[in-house]
Amino acid sequence: MNTTEVALAIEARWVIPVIPQGVVLEHTTVLINDDGSIHAILPTAEARATFQATRVVRLEHHALMPGLINLHTHAAMTLMRGMADDLPLMDWLQHHIWPAERAAVTPRFVRDGTLLASAEMLAGGVTCFNDMYFYPDAAAEAVVQAGIRAHLGLVVMDFPSAYATDADDYLLKGLEARDGWRGTSRITSSLAPHAPYTMSDRSFEKVMTYAEQLGLGIHTHLHETRTELDQSVAQYGIRPIQRMADLGILGPGLVAAHAVHLDEAERTLLKEFGCHIAHCPASNLKLGSGIANVPAMLETGINVGLGTDGAASNNRLDMFAEMRLAALLAKGASEDAAVVPATTALEMATINGARALGLDDKIGSIEPGKLADLVAIDMDSAICNPCFDPVSHLVYVAGREHVTHTWVAGELCYQEGIYAHVEPAELKEITTQWYPKLSPFRV
Amino acid sequence: MNTTEVALAIEARWVIPVIPQGVVLEHTTVLINDDGSIHAILPTAEARATFQATRVVRLEHHALMPGLINLHTHAAMTLMRGMADDLPLMDWLQHHIWPAERAAVTPRFVRDGTLLASAEMLAGGVTCFNDMYFYPDAAAEAVVQAGIRAHLGLVVMDFPSAYATDADDYLLKGLEARDGWRGTSRITSSLAPHAPYTMSDRSFEKVMTYAEQLGLGIHTHLHETRTELDQSVAQYGIRPIQRMADLGILGPGLVAAHAVHLDEAERTLLKEFGCHIAHCPASNLKLGSGIANVPAMLETGINVGLGTDGAASNNRLDMFAEMRLAALLAKGASEDAAVVPATTALEMATINGARALGLDDKIGSIEPGKLADLVAIDMDSAICNPCFDPVSHLVYVAGREHVTHTWVAGELCYQEGIYAHVEPAELKEITTQWYPKLSPFRV
Repeated sequence: MNTTEVALAIEARWVIPVIPQGVVLEHTTVLINDDGSIHAILPTAEARATFQATRVVRLEHHALMPGLINLHTHAAMTLMRGMADDLPLMDWLQHHIWPAERAAVTPRFVRDGTLLASAEMLAGGVTCFNDMYFYPDAAAEAVVQAGIRAHLGLVVMDFPSAYATDADDYLLKGLEARDGWRGTSRITSSLAPHAPYTMSDRSFEKVMTYAEQLGLGIHTHLHETRTELDQSVAQYGIRPIQRMADLGILGPGLVAAHAVHLDEAERTLLKEFGCHIAHCPASNLKLGSGIANVPAMLETGINVGLGTDGAASNNRLDMFAEMRLAALLAKGASEDAAVVPATTALEMATINGARALGLDDKIGSIEPGKLADLVAIDMDSAICNPCFDPVSHLVYVAGREHVTHTWVAGELCYQEGIYAHVEPAELKEITTQWYPKLSPFRV
Repeated sequence: MNTTEVALAIEARWVIPVIPQGVVLEHTTVLINDDGSIHAILPTAEARATFQATRVVRLEHHALMPGLINLHTHAAMTLMRGMADDLPLMDWLQHHIWPAERAAVTPRFVRDGTLLASAEMLAGGVTCFNDMYFYPDAAAEAVVQAGIRAHLGLVVMDFPSAYATDADDYLLKGLEARDGWRGTSRITSSLAPHAPYTMSDRSFEKVMTYAEQLGLGIHTHLHETRTELDQSVAQYGIRPIQRMADLGILGPGLVAAHAVHLDEAERTLLKEFGCHIAHCPASNLKLGSGIANVPAMLETGINVGLGTDGAASNNRLDMFAEMRLAALLAKGASEDAAVVPATTALEMATINGARALGLDDKIGSIEPGKLADLVAIDMDSAICNPCFDPVSHLVYVAGREHVTHTWVAGELCYQEGIYAHVEPAELKEITTQWYPKLSPFRV
């Protein structure tokens, strides 16, 4: 009998492909090519009869799902996790985060913090993150080491930092960094004007010019707090989204992080321009920003993904926690238990994130031709049994601690406590070294 | 040199006693007597010099805190976890939970489900739970086996079930069950009239008579949904809390679960009568009940503890998740990052729960003379470092998966995946047996 050869066969108790929507496949095998792409998805009996795999991974009690996509984070801020909690946003920023950043943030800080973040995310089933921070070249170094996928934002703002002096300098440094990682297949990039309140109209226009010329998307903070809205009205006479519309920033390349405070007209505007929202429920709660009206966003037809934000305002880079919270919070705030069901929460954390990054032809679901960014979750523990519906358990019961395997483009980057490219001793050294430098800025 | 003998010495990197408030002790030892009570809390160097312990547990990278107290649950419902999600409350109850209960709930169901729940809770650092379900005698059997502490509610309602026919019968059966576990030191009990909407005035009066005669507290659902309030106004002309006040039910023995919808006068009433609230943030969100105004409760001076509710509406019996959610949700809903800081969330999950159960002379904090209901949490993982504040990390970063040891009255009931009195094979058998019986009722 003729069999076809593939590089890897993952046999799982359940495969949750996300596309087609709502499907749960039982006793199914995902076959993966040498180049890290998905060859086929077949019933395990059929796959065994038809294919010969160089490597076979048998997951008898596991769910296999697409890698989680963290649509908004500042990875390097893992080093500032828990440094200053339970403070109002401006106190937190002005008296803790910004002074610490001025004193401590160097390329080494960004590399170290991003490596710590990448390790945390891989262990928690995150295969791709959408980042925004200083020194993206240093972040790229950590990303390449860990083997995770990243969409690195080239941050731009009008305020000087150790990294750059003004908007032109930020743009210059960002684009230079980007040149350095071309040909690195797991890194893509966007332009990341920080926020409407840190960007002049003129700087936004420069960003748009580059975005159009280079075909890059835009990643920004938008309508996160009421203060931001009030300031914009005071300074420009309009709310930030209207200002962004007037400046030509709205479009299908825009990923707007937070969008906590939107009125109906603004939702319609975002929908009409094909913008994407990175909903960050834990961070929005923790900083007291408010509760985004996700059911209304989804009803309007806006593409909504999920993000953790940085570890300093969450304090976890945990997309399982984010999925669960997004589902629960939408129900509670709208007093409607039927909104954001488990299936929708899972889509937000996978395919919706891929769409927002313009990567939905490559990642976000388990489909032939896409890259094998995959996560296995052990569903054999007592808390996951009985299991009436594995998607419900993934969202409401399981946690990132149940992740056993994380593959990026078919490469096993994490398995049961062991990373392919990160030594625990290295992480330990990083946290030990940075602790005394950051301690002066804690509460 | 003279040394005093004790049964157990637990040497921890950090001890978080909860009382005194906000204190974090470093390199501290908790010394425990033969009878399971706490002898002393001393700096480790001093403890080693002064005491001789039969057993020493060294926790070099761990935080030791009081066992978590789950102030509202229906433990046996673990068997229905994930059976029917994302449904409006009445659809969920009428078409899934109640039919399943009518078909499946037997003493064996309650024993099995409560054992599963007790195992989940011990592994997650919960040492005491406040329960309400049918067949409390069967629940007690599981509690005794697992070694956990439980405050078992003797459920009363006007509606017949397989367990009892009417309020008198529920009371009779509950009090008989209670007679059976007298002398079992880890079980205490309350009278548990289910809810104002399932209890007539007459039945409430009977419950009160017994509560006064026997010196028992009362555990009930109160102001969980808007529907409940509307129905009460339609039927009685007043909201349930006023009705309870008129019936003489309000008092320092009352634990009111949920209390999602309270106006200012109702908060004042609960405060004046010394009532306690079991805040169940995850369940309130998941069932679309709403968001309780916890900051206002705390400001009024009401004692607020935390509960998971049953696993069918959460879907975890995870007090770490509940602490984090309580803190985050209060901040987000009030748009004030300073409310419910980590220290308060930890108090809600420990000493406040103990106060609500009238057990604060015995549990809820690490103090000499109290029982050694203790939990150790490993803070050595990469995500818990750097650690600027262990209380912040316990609430915002660590999860129940970091619990390594759980002691109840000085007895080590759980350590790193191993239970003292529960076999994993037994849990497996339970979930395997019940799955086919409950499957017909899933969505």
